[in-house]
Amino acid sequence: MASIIAASVLALAAGAHAQLEGRGFPDCTNGPLKNNTVCDTTADPLTRAKALISEFTLAEKINNTGSTSPGVPRLGLPAYTWWQEALHGVADSPGVNFSDSGDFRYATSFPQPILMGAAFDDQLIHDVASVISTEARAFNNDDRAGLDFWTPNINPFKDARWGRGQETPGEDPYHLSSYVHSLIQGLQGDNPTYKKVVATCKHFVAYDVESWNGNFRYQFDAHVNSQDLVEYYMPPFRSCARDSHVGAFMCSYNALNGVPTCADPYLLQTVLREHWNWTAEEQWVTSDCDAVQNVFMPHDYASSREEAAAISLKAGTDINCGTYYQEHLPGAYEQGLINETDVDTSLIRQYSSLIRLGYFDGDRVPYRNLTWNDVSTPYAQDLALKAATSGITLLKNDGVLPLQITNGTKIALIGDWANATEQMLGNYDGIPPYFHSPLWAAQQTGAQVTYVQGPGGQGDPTTDSWLPVWSAANKSDVIVYIGGIDNSVEAEGMDRVSIAWTGAQLDVIGQLADYYDKPTIVVQMGAGSLDSSPLVNNPNISALLWGGYPGQDGGKAIFNILQGVTAPAGRLPTTQYHADYISKVPMTDMTLRPNATSGSPGRTYIWLNEEPVFEFGYGLHYTNFTTTIQGSNSSNSSYNIDSLTSDCTESYLDRCPFKTFSIDVVNTGSVTSDYVTLGFLTGVHGPEPYPNKRLVSYQRLHNVTAGSTQTAALNLTLGSLSRVDDKGNTVLYPGDYALLVDVQPMAYVNFTLTGEPKTLDEWPQPPEPTSQASDYYVGGYGSGAPYQKQVPVEIQP
Amino acid sequence: MASIIAASVLALAAGAHAQLEGRGFPDCTNGPLKNNTVCDTTADPLTRAKALISEFTLAEKINNTGSTSPGVPRLGLPAYTWWQEALHGVADSPGVNFSDSGDFRYATSFPQPILMGAAFDDQLIHDVASVISTEARAFNNDDRAGLDFWTPNINPFKDARWGRGQETPGEDPYHLSSYVHSLIQGLQGDNPTYKKVVATCKHFVAYDVESWNGNFRYQFDAHVNSQDLVEYYMPPFRSCARDSHVGAFMCSYNALNGVPTCADPYLLQTVLREHWNWTAEEQWVTSDCDAVQNVFMPHDYASSREEAAAISLKAGTDINCGTYYQEHLPGAYEQGLINETDVDTSLIRQYSSLIRLGYFDGDRVPYRNLTWNDVSTPYAQDLALKAATSGITLLKNDGVLPLQITNGTKIALIGDWANATEQMLGNYDGIPPYFHSPLWAAQQTGAQVTYVQGPGGQGDPTTDSWLPVWSAANKSDVIVYIGGIDNSVEAEGMDRVSIAWTGAQLDVIGQLADYYDKPTIVVQMGAGSLDSSPLVNNPNISALLWGGYPGQDGGKAIFNILQGVTAPAGRLPTTQYHADYISKVPMTDMTLRPNATSGSPGRTYIWLNEEPVFEFGYGLHYTNFTTTIQGSNSSNSSYNIDSLTSDCTESYLDRCPFKTFSIDVVNTGSVTSDYVTLGFLTGVHGPEPYPNKRLVSYQRLHNVTAGSTQTAALNLTLGSLSRVDDKGNTVLYPGDYALLVDVQPMAYVNFTLTGEPKTLDEWPQPPEPTSQASDYYVGGYGSGAPYQKQVPVEIQP
Repeated sequence: MASIIAASVLALAAGAHAQLEGRGFPDCTNGPLKNNTVCDTTADPLTRAKALISEFTLAEKINNTGSTSPGVPRLGLPAYTWWQEALHGVADSPGVNFSDSGDFRYATSFPQPILMGAAFDDQLIHDVASVISTEARAFNNDDRAGLDFWTPNINPFKDARWGRGQETPGEDPYHLSSYVHSLIQGLQGDNPTYKKVVATCKHFVAYDVESWNGNFRYQFDAHVNSQDLVEYYMPPFRSCARDSHVGAFMCSYNALNGVPTCADPYLLQTVLREHWNWTAEEQWVTSDCDAVQNVFMPHDYASSREEAAAISLKAGTDINCGTYYQEHLPGAYEQGLINETDVDTSLIRQYSSLIRLGYFDGDRVPYRNLTWNDVSTPYAQDLALKAATSGITLLKNDGVLPLQITNGTKIALIGDWANATEQMLGNYDGIPPYFHSPLWAAQQTGAQVTYVQGPGGQGDPTTDSWLPVWSAANKSDVIVYIGGIDNSVEAEGMDRVSIAWTGAQLDVIGQLADYYDKPTIVVQMGAGSLDSSPLVNNPNISALLWGGYPGQDGGKAIFNILQGVTAPAGRLPTTQYHADYISKVPMTDMTLRPNATSGSPGRTYIWLNEEPVFEFGYGLHYTNFTTTIQGSNSSNSSYNIDSLTSDCTESYLDRCPFKTFSIDVVNTGSVTSDYVTLGFLTGVHGPEPYPNKRLVSYQRLHNVTAGSTQTAALNLTLGSLSRVDDKGNTVLYPGDYALLVDVQPMAYVNFTLTGEPKTLDEWPQPPEPTSQASDYYVGGYGSGAPYQKQVPVEIQP
Repeated sequence: MASIIAASVLALAAGAHAQLEGRGFPDCTNGPLKNNTVCDTTADPLTRAKALISEFTLAEKINNTGSTSPGVPRLGLPAYTWWQEALHGVADSPGVNFSDSGDFRYATSFPQPILMGAAFDDQLIHDVASVISTEARAFNNDDRAGLDFWTPNINPFKDARWGRGQETPGEDPYHLSSYVHSLIQGLQGDNPTYKKVVATCKHFVAYDVESWNGNFRYQFDAHVNSQDLVEYYMPPFRSCARDSHVGAFMCSYNALNGVPTCADPYLLQTVLREHWNWTAEEQWVTSDCDAVQNVFMPHDYASSREEAAAISLKAGTDINCGTYYQEHLPGAYEQGLINETDVDTSLIRQYSSLIRLGYFDGDRVPYRNLTWNDVSTPYAQDLALKAATSGITLLKNDGVLPLQITNGTKIALIGDWANATEQMLGNYDGIPPYFHSPLWAAQQTGAQVTYVQGPGGQGDPTTDSWLPVWSAANKSDVIVYIGGIDNSVEAEGMDRVSIAWTGAQLDVIGQLADYYDKPTIVVQMGAGSLDSSPLVNNPNISALLWGGYPGQDGGKAIFNILQGVTAPAGRLPTTQYHADYISKVPMTDMTLRPNATSGSPGRTYIWLNEEPVFEFGYGLHYTNFTTTIQGSNSSNSSYNIDSLTSDCTESYLDRCPFKTFSIDVVNTGSVTSDYVTLGFLTGVHGPEPYPNKRLVSYQRLHNVTAGSTQTAALNLTLGSLSRVDDKGNTVLYPGDYALLVDVQPMAYVNFTLTGEPKTLDEWPQPPEPTSQASDYYVGGYGSGAPYQKQVPVEIQP
C-alpha cells in the first residue's frame, strides 16, 4: 500500500495549489467539523487540536506536514500556506496575495531592519511591528494572507560580507535581543486569548553564510564553541523563545558542529524547548525552505531521503518548508523510522497555533474587524518616514549640513541611488503605496535639480555614463552623491567579496570633489559595511551619511535629514571595517575573539583589536550633547554577588535587576535633536580575554530642545554584568566594572562586585560530536550519498 | 586654454552619441575631404591617414581617441563606434543596431566557441567566421554596424571556474592557436586590398579572473613566470599577431607581474609589435572598456588620472574604450606627459585601419554589395546546426543511444534547459532568427513529450517544483534531463565558486534514475567543468552528453544527436575536474605545473597529476574506430636537430615543418560517423618536469562510413616538438619523443632527436619589476591614490 499512500500524498499536495485561492477559514457553523471539539471555543487549544487530528488518516496527516498544507477537504479543513513573509511590511511570499488593483494592492513598506536598528528605539520597533501585524490581519481577513509570518531574521550581523545583514538590526547581541522583544510584542499583540499573528525567529542558529568561496549555506557547517555560541549567537533566540514567547522558530540551512540544525535534537529539543522552556503546545518549528532535503544532500547527514525526513521530524522540525516530508515520510514510516505519534506531535503544534490565532473561531476574534481601511493609514505612512529618519546616520560634516536650499539652489543629484525606487526596499519587500525617491524629494524642496545616474551597476567601472555627471556638477551649487551598494551585490544567496566601494564610484566622487569647487555630500546606501576612509580622508568631501535601505519614503527621509527638517540621531548598528579586514578573517570563521594563530583581528566592536573606519554606535548630530550619570560622583560602589542574587524573584537569574542608571543629557547646541543614550560595560572580571566593551542598555531620547536636559534610564540586569565561560555557562564574577556612556565616552561610573562567582545559567552541554565534518567544504553538491534503488514496501495505514 | 579644450572635448564627445545614428561613410565625392589625400585610392594607407589627421586640431585629435569617436563634423568625417561584438554571430553592442522589425532584425547565432572548439574542425571555424563577417558587412552596409569587431576572446580556459570560459575554444594553447588562425582568416577575408572586417584578439594577456574571493578583474595582478607565459598564455596571441595578422588587439583589465597590461610597453611594444612583427600601420590596440581608468583606480599604477592616460597612450594603447583619454589627455598634454606625436601615432593606426576596410572608398569595396539577402541564409542556418552537432560530446552510453523515438514514445523532458531559448546563446549574443529549443525539437520527433522545468534556478535547491517532475517521469517511456549551468552562475564578471552540479539537480536526477525504472538520459549544458562523477557512477543513468551553449538551433542539435540523425564526434575541449579540485588551486594561481608546496595538482590535462572525471579530448561514438600510423612499424626514427633547422626557409624557426604523419582511421562499427584525430606528443626531452602530453595536431575526418577507412594528416612543425625554458626561450631539445593518437592512445610512434639544443625563438626579457604588488589583493576600490586638487593650466593647441 505504500505506493498508494505516496501517490495520494502527491496528488493531494499537488492539488493544494489550486485550493489555496479560496482557502478561507474552516466553517465551524455549518461545516463537517461543526461538532468536532476543535470548534468548541470553550475547550483548551491542546484538546481542540487533538480532536481535530484524530479525524485524519495517516496519509492526511503526512499530507499536512509541508509548508503548503492541502488541509483535509473531506473534513472541510481548508488548505493553508504557512509561508508568509513580513520582514519590514507585509511582503510578497507564497501565502501573500496582493491585489492587482483596488483594495489590498499595497501595504506599508518600512525600512530594512538594519536601518531601523540604527534608530536604537525599541518603542519605534514596537509601533512598526504593530502596524505590520494590523495590515497582515487586514490582508488575512480578505483571504490574502495567512496568520503566521516568517519574520524576524535575528542572526547577529557579525560579518560585513553577509548578504542578508540588511534583514537584521545589526551586530550586537544585546541590541538584537532588546529589539526583537519589542518586535515580537508588536507582531503577536497583547490579547490574552488570541495572537495577532505568529512571528518566527530565524535562522536557528549560526546561519551566517550565503555563498562564500565555495561554502554554500545549504552545506555550511558552522564550528562554534559553547562560549561564542551562548555569548553571541544565542541571545537573540533566547530573547525570542524564553523572554518573548515567540510562536515559531525556523531551523537553518547550515549545520552546527557537524549536525544540520533541522536534524539536531540538541538544538531543537534540549536547548530550545527544554532549556528555554519553549513548550507551549502551539509553538512550532519550521525548516528553512528545503533544509530537510539539504539534510540528505549536500549535508550528507542521512543515508537516504527517508532517513533525512525521519530524523528531522523526530528532532523537532514540525513543518517542512518544501515537499520532502510529504514525499518521503511515507517511506520513512514503512521503514519504521517514524511512528504515527511523531507525526501527531507536529500536527498538534500546527493546529494549536492556528487555534490560538482564532482560525476556527470566526468573528469572536477581535482582529476580524480590520480591513483595507487599516492599511497604509496616514499614521502608518508617517511612521515609515519616521523609522527612516530615525535611523539615518551622520558620519562626517564640515558644517555644510543642514543644507540651506532655496528656490534658486542648483543641486547636482548623482549616483545610482539618486532616483532609487525598489532599491530602497531591499529584500523581502512587498508593494508600497508609493516610492518617494531621493530625486522626487529633492524636487519637492524647490531646488533646481539635475539628476544623473552616474556610474552604472555595482561592479563595472565603465566611464560611459560619466560625461553627464561632469556637466551636472559644472552647473550646480552643491553636489549630492547618493550611492553605495544594493541588492545586486548583497542579497540572499550572495555574500560580498569586497567591502570597498564598488565599481568606479570612488573615482567619480573623487573627481566631483577635486575638480569642482562645490560642497560635495555623499549619502552611502546599503547595509553591509563599506570602507569610506577615502571619503573621510578627502577634505574636499563635505559630508557623509549612511542611509541603509530606507523604505517607501526613503528619499524624503534623506532630504529631511540633509535639510535639517529632522536632525540626525541614528547610530551605526555595525562596525565599519577597513577594506583589507576581510582578507584576515574567512567568512566561515565563527570565532569572535582575536586569534594570533589565524591572524584574525577579532569580530565586532566587542572584540576587534584594530582601529575601524567607524565604530559601532558612531553617529554625529547637528547639535552638541553632554551627559552626566546621576550619582557618579560618589565613591566607587561595591556590590556583593550573593546579595544581588538572593534578593531576586525572577525565574531566570540573568533577568534579575541590578540597577537603573539615570543619565542627564543636555543639548548644549542650538538645534532640537534626538539623542541615543548608549550604555557600554567594560572592566576586569570573568575569563580572559576581556572584551573591549559591550552594549548593556540604551535609550533614545526624543526632541531634546536646545539648552534643555532630558534624563535617560539605563536599566542593567545581572545578565548585563555576566560573562560566559568556556562551557557556555553564564556567570556573575567578582571584579571591577565600568559603565560608559556613548562611543567616545562622555561619562562613566566605576563599581565593584565582590564575593564568589555565581552561575546565573547552566548551559546544557552538547553531545559528543559523531561526525568530523571538514571546516571548508568546497565540494558543492557533488558528494551526495550513493544512490540506492528503493523497493516500495507495503504497509497498512 | 586648457579648460576650453577640455570643455570642447566633452561637448563633442557628448554630442557624438546623437551623431552615431546617421554615421554612415565619409563622402569622398562631394564632402569637405574630397580633395584630401585620404580620398585618393591610389595613395598608400599610411599617406592617406597622415593626410587626414593633418587637418585635425589637437582637440579634435584627442576627441577621437575613445571608443565612441565623434569624428570631425567640420571635415565631414562622421562619427564612428569602434566597439562592435561578434563572438558567435553579429551581437548586441554599442556599435550594432538590430532593427525592431523588417530587415536586419536578426543575425545567425552560432554556438559559443567552447562548443565549436569541441568540434576540433578548423574548416568549420573558417566557414562560421566567413558567415559572421558576411553578415557583419551586410549590417555595415545598412549603417547598422561598424567594420571592426572585438572578437575573439582567445585566453586559454585554464580554470574551470572562469565565468568567460564559454567564449573560448578551450584549454589547450595549440588548439586555440590553430582555431584562431582559421577564425581570423574567415573574419578578415582574403581580399589583398580590403579587409572584410577587423578582428580583435583579446584579452592580452593573462586575463583569467572575473571575481574570485575579492580578486576583481579590474585589479587582478597575474603573476606569471616567463616559462608559463610563453608556453601557455602567449601562443594564441602569437598566432593572432605573428601568424594570422589580426587587425587589432585588446589589452586587458589585469596587470601582469605588477604592470597593468594597457600601460605596459614591454607587452604592447616589445613583445607584440617588435617581437611578433605586428607593425603594419593599420594594426591598433584598444583597451578593454575603461581599463585605462583602472590603471589609475584600482590598480593604483599612476599617481594621477592624467598620468594613467599618458602612460597608456605611450605604452601603445591606441584606443581607449571609455572616455578617460578624452577627459584626461588634455590635462596630460598640459602637464607635458604626452606630446602631439603620441596622439598622432594612435590616430594614424585607427584611420589606416579604416582605410584598409574601405571606409573612404565607396562602391569600389567588393563587400559593399552584401545585403539583408546575405543574412541568415539557408546555408548559414544549416551551418549553425552543424556547428552545434559537431561539438556535442557523448560521455556515457549504456546502449540506450541512439534513441529510437516513434509516435508512441512518451518522453519526460525535464530540466531548466529543457525549454531553453536565450540560454542556448550564452553571452555576447545577438538576436537569432529563431530559437529551436530542446522542447520544440522533441516535439518535432513525433514523440509525446511532457515538459517540466524541474528544479528552478541554479542555486536554490527548493523542492517546490518537484511534484510535476515525478508525475512526468511516471507516465514516460524515457526520461531526458537537460540541465547543468548557464549564465546565471558563469558569466562575465562572475566566476563560479563550485564546480559541482548546482542546486538540487543531482537529487532530482538521482530520484528519477533510482525511483523509476526508465532509461534516464542526462544532457549537461554550460561551459565550465561540472563534476558529473555521481552520474557516471550511478548505473541507473543510461547516458550522459555535454552540450555547451549550442546557439539558435541547439535543441534540434541535441535531438539530432540523441536520435542518431547525426552521430556524435565532439571531444571535450577542457578537463573535467572533480569537485574538490578547486579547493587545491586558488583561481589567482597562474602556474601550470603541479606544486608540492602549494598543494596544486597542476592545471590542464598537460600538467594535472591526478585523475580527472573526464580527460581533455574525451568523447564517445555510436560506432568504433581503430587507427594506424602509416610507417609506424619501421624502427625508431632519429633526426638531427641541426639538419632539421638548416633545411628550413621559414622566417620563424618554430614554423619549420617537421613531418606529416598519416593516420589511417577505420570505422569498425556500423554507424557512419565523424572522427576527430587527436595527435598528442609526449617523451623525455627538455627541462623537467615533463608534461603528461600535449596536443600538437588534430584533424576531423567527416562521414567515415561503416567499414571504410579515411586517412588523417597530422602536420608537426619544429614548434610542435619544442619546449620552453625558464627564460621563455623556445628550444628544440635532443631526446625521446612519442606521438600518440587519441586520448586513450589507439596508436603511437616513437622517434628521437639528436644533436645540440637549438633555440627556435629567443624571448625578449621583461624589465626588472619596479613595484611589488601583492598576490592576493582584497582591497577592492578603497585604495585609490590620494586625491589632488587640479589647477587648470593654459596651453596653446
